[in-house]
Amino acid sequence: MLTSSRDSAARRIAVDAMGGDLGPAEVVAAVKLALAQQPALNPVVLVGDEAQLTPLLAQASLPIDGQRLSLHHAPEVITMDDKPVLALRRKKNSSMLRAIELVKDGAASVVVSCGNTGALMAGGTLRLRTMQGIARPALAAVVPRAGGSFVLIDAGANPEARPEHLLHNAILGSHYCRVRLGQATPRIGLMSIGTEEGKGNALTTEAHALLRAAHAQGILNYAGPIEGFQVFAAEEPVDVVVCDGFVGNIMLKSWESLVKFFTSTIKAELRANPLRMAGAIMAKGAFAALKSRIDPDRHSGAPLLGLRGNILKAHGSSKRLAICAAICAAGEIISAEMNQHIEADVQRAASVLSTPLSPQ
Amino acid sequence: MLTSSRDSAARRIAVDAMGGDLGPAEVVAAVKLALAQQPALNPVVLVGDEAQLTPLLAQASLPIDGQRLSLHHAPEVITMDDKPVLALRRKKNSSMLRAIELVKDGAASVVVSCGNTGALMAGGTLRLRTMQGIARPALAAVVPRAGGSFVLIDAGANPEARPEHLLHNAILGSHYCRVRLGQATPRIGLMSIGTEEGKGNALTTEAHALLRAAHAQGILNYAGPIEGFQVFAAEEPVDVVVCDGFVGNIMLKSWESLVKFFTSTIKAELRANPLRMAGAIMAKGAFAALKSRIDPDRHSGAPLLGLRGNILKAHGSSKRLAICAAICAAGEIISAEMNQHIEADVQRAASVLSTPLSPQ
Repeated sequence: MLTSSRDSAARRIAVDAMGGDLGPAEVVAAVKLALAQQPALNPVVLVGDEAQLTPLLAQASLPIDGQRLSLHHAPEVITMDDKPVLALRRKKNSSMLRAIELVKDGAASVVVSCGNTGALMAGGTLRLRTMQGIARPALAAVVPRAGGSFVLIDAGANPEARPEHLLHNAILGSHYCRVRLGQATPRIGLMSIGTEEGKGNALTTEAHALLRAAHAQGILNYAGPIEGFQVFAAEEPVDVVVCDGFVGNIMLKSWESLVKFFTSTIKAELRANPLRMAGAIMAKGAFAALKSRIDPDRHSGAPLLGLRGNILKAHGSSKRLAICAAICAAGEIISAEMNQHIEADVQRAASVLSTPLSPQ
Repeated sequence: MLTSSRDSAARRIAVDAMGGDLGPAEVVAAVKLALAQQPALNPVVLVGDEAQLTPLLAQASLPIDGQRLSLHHAPEVITMDDKPVLALRRKKNSSMLRAIELVKDGAASVVVSCGNTGALMAGGTLRLRTMQGIARPALAAVVPRAGGSFVLIDAGANPEARPEHLLHNAILGSHYCRVRLGQATPRIGLMSIGTEEGKGNALTTEAHALLRAAHAQGILNYAGPIEGFQVFAAEEPVDVVVCDGFVGNIMLKSWESLVKFFTSTIKAELRANPLRMAGAIMAKGAFAALKSRIDPDRHSGAPLLGLRGNILKAHGSSKRLAICAAICAAGEIISAEMNQHIEADVQRAASVLSTPLSPQ
């Protein structure tokens, strides 16, 4: 079944009910929340084992009305321990693969899953074709910084990027930033070392030239290369940080690791004596505010962009609020017709890629 | 003048007195501290403008005895705003270049400077030759993590590394870790994405094979590839994190940026109302302990390793304690005969590089 992208079936959100650490009950609760919070949310298709889901839906008083919510049976589950490539080959009837197939067949636009990341990324990349003009999909993530948030792209999909992939990452990230963070003309920074001409490496030097050419044509808003010390700073912030998937994955994960180290060190120090503990209780509002400021659940759902359809990955350990945020993000992506806008800009950028670049 | 490396003149520490943000008085104070703290410290040569330094030394009651402390006149200063390549060409009589020349001529072993980073790195690389068998120097940094610290190498010297450069970084980092952190057999991790075979990129795949071969020959203690989430964690920690200078520089600077964002957010939240402020005052010991835990001054002095002689870079804004820590580190590097040990291991590793690697 092939339907036009404006067809109502195609605008559905396929939610993988089975793959998360907390099981299908948490996903059902998240769907209920999302439908209640967003009266205009796109229709949701819950994909998973009917025998497990039917009683959970009844318990949650969530009716399968065939309009706002429908159920798509998939008896198998890809677990966190499954090897991605093997799982994709052997578990054809898994909730994850079936959800991806719904997008491939035009019966949904976006997949939301908190299942096995490797399988989801590989499954999405192998089953959904890339958009016209785009060679590699990229993973985006929203990260808080002083005074706001930025989109990091690529957070790990394509570890061996070529310059044109970084140009496409900039276009993908810009549009995602528009939808998710509401920035009309997001400022794009190219992750590099040293911001003078000639610093960085061969990849960033060429990507810099492409981004400048695309900026000159009004395709995007390129602010130039940025260094590590600028990433979280409030001064001249960028809204989109562009890099290859190797650098992006290492940055994102090492940041999470650093925040954990930092917060556990503070906690241990605050518990070291009764005076500090009493002080910590009085100041607890500050710690709660900090936690909510850097809470990954607020912007849950890292999308794999550049495909015909979108895949939104939520953390495996996501609770209902995080899964709900990802489902709502899927709705925003569809309503904003993000992919159509991306395709138009990728076409406009084709001339940048076919023009020989001046050495400067 | 060419002297053997065991000659007492060659074991001197050349301190660039002029390039830091706080000026020569702070460097003089740091030298005084270092000489007082470490009675067996190697002799120090203070390099800079005599007319400025003589009164500062008198004020500090620090005598030029020609034994523990001597003065080497250099009338020019490379400033933070100088373009590195131009400065190196035009300011031949700068304190920085003269200090490097002392090492080149065998009149000192290590340069300590808080001057212009670009000029120092370029000057060291151009004026001092690399060690036998090593093609590129690497910049090391000591970074705190849960339960200890690790050495990050390369923090920015060589942004286009080949696999053999990463093998050499591992050897350089191991020896620096031994001297600075007292680890007898430092565990080495290769910075990558995904720890399964076949993940990462072409560079890490080849470097992984080289590191495994060097480990098999007992040259170093390779723990395998690590992911970003492991960097600051207490579980199975590594003592040396090996990467190319592009990734290393971005990681290090983005971590500093993240810590700034984090601490400024906490501060602002703690000041938001009187109750929180009172609590913060009661708990201030915890914040002081955290600050000292992550204080960059404790392990001040990022060395450029792999050269015949060493260059230790302290932050431009270093205060006397940080500069003193760097001077003391220089003494440890010389006393441990670190470079001789590195040269021996690089020679042992030559067989690893000349043997074709098995595909596995």
